[in-house]
Amino acid sequence: MQRYALKIEYHGAPFVGWQRQIDLASVQGAIEDALAKIEPRAHNIAAAGRTDAGVHALAQVAHCDMERDWTPFRLSEAINYHLKPLPIAIVDCVAVDDDFHARFSALERRYLFRVLVRRPPATHQAGLVWQVKKPLDIDRMREAATHLMGEHDFTTFRSTICQAQTPVKTLDRVDMTEHPVGGGVEVQFDVRARSFLHNQVRSIVGTLERVGAGSFAPDDVKQMLAARDRQACGPVAPPQGLYLSHVTYETDPFAHSPLRRG
Amino acid sequence: MQRYALKIEYHGAPFVGWQRQIDLASVQGAIEDALAKIEPRAHNIAAAGRTDAGVHALAQVAHCDMERDWTPFRLSEAINYHLKPLPIAIVDCVAVDDDFHARFSALERRYLFRVLVRRPPATHQAGLVWQVKKPLDIDRMREAATHLMGEHDFTTFRSTICQAQTPVKTLDRVDMTEHPVGGGVEVQFDVRARSFLHNQVRSIVGTLERVGAGSFAPDDVKQMLAARDRQACGPVAPPQGLYLSHVTYETDPFAHSPLRRG
Repeated sequence: MQRYALKIEYHGAPFVGWQRQIDLASVQGAIEDALAKIEPRAHNIAAAGRTDAGVHALAQVAHCDMERDWTPFRLSEAINYHLKPLPIAIVDCVAVDDDFHARFSALERRYLFRVLVRRPPATHQAGLVWQVKKPLDIDRMREAATHLMGEHDFTTFRSTICQAQTPVKTLDRVDMTEHPVGGGVEVQFDVRARSFLHNQVRSIVGTLERVGAGSFAPDDVKQMLAARDRQACGPVAPPQGLYLSHVTYETDPFAHSPLRRG
Repeated sequence: MQRYALKIEYHGAPFVGWQRQIDLASVQGAIEDALAKIEPRAHNIAAAGRTDAGVHALAQVAHCDMERDWTPFRLSEAINYHLKPLPIAIVDCVAVDDDFHARFSALERRYLFRVLVRRPPATHQAGLVWQVKKPLDIDRMREAATHLMGEHDFTTFRSTICQAQTPVKTLDRVDMTEHPVGGGVEVQFDVRARSFLHNQVRSIVGTLERVGAGSFAPDDVKQMLAARDRQACGPVAPPQGLYLSHVTYETDPFAHSPLRRG
């Protein structure tokens, strides 16, 4: 068997999320079904991030084991062929050692969250951003975010159905950048951690948005965190603004990809 | 009557183009219908660029004349309300003098053309880019573009149904920039002229793409232009990559917009 790492881009809207569920459209299920058309048998692929229903990916990483010795180019072409017409694309593919594990070898996950801040409705961006109408004070949001940096018990910022063994996580970065768009601004969050709790990014973004809009003071976020109580959290931001944007490994498996173009 | 300048963003897919056509969905018709719900009578608005079927806009400019003295904010909100759920948004609105004419006062039109260059299918970008699978040599395309700069008879690069009185136009800029995306690159064209012939931008982009892919030499474009023959043109690029991105006036009517946010 040869192991391959896959870099995967997808539009989250049509799917119940990454994880395979009986009789429901999942990204994992779609890719496993495509692999079964290439090598007919049961496939079980593992991914770095188990994205939720409606959440997008720019660079999800998964691995699969194949009996035939495929060139990465042929394998990615074959999977993409069988994925049609679903909005999932294998954008990179490399052969890796057997000890590479897309989930367990990952050192850091990075998420992008796009917030369109303007009153006029979204046109091209529909389904790709969370739209809010009230202007946001980014400086207030940045101040609030400092309270979340580092190692904390994130009970307040995780879903009640989160199955992680511990609510303690270390947040490496919560950066915000502003990008002018017609009629307003797009605020992009770049959130990084070794791993995340269920709904953690959306709970953080939803809470920071309320800080930016003036509902909470930046210091309120410190108290919300200290409360270790899900009830203390702000609203959870919707999935369509969220993208799994990067997964970091000790050595980037795609660094010398044969598919890379100049 | 008070004249207002409108800055308009739209997704081109559902429309036969800017221009009103009986019984067909046009952007002009949709906005005029919205205006008729606000001030019930026939409205006839003029725009800087009469975009074709499927072509998008980031910043189309039109003007309308209203009997009531609307604040720009209220007028834009009212139009956006009545445009729902169409993918058209009034992203800016200002009161202007009667001698402002969105079409005749325009000094330069600017178009963006997005080409997604990669083998994996588009996901989030579907309908928003022209996808080509073969890598493009941008330096060759830039060299070819130099032959098109300045004043020329663009008969080769205009639709046979173009109604302009003369095929002579002056191309101010044809710039190309590359933006890395998963599995490839996005090439963005920035094309500027006082005014354009019908299908001129798409004819130019389609021809330059063939230069980048190796079908034509950069110097071939010089001969194509000199031929002044529509048959000499390369393929016309599809509409979904094209965006009217900016219209320049002697004084920017939106420079001091009351809708502008910090």
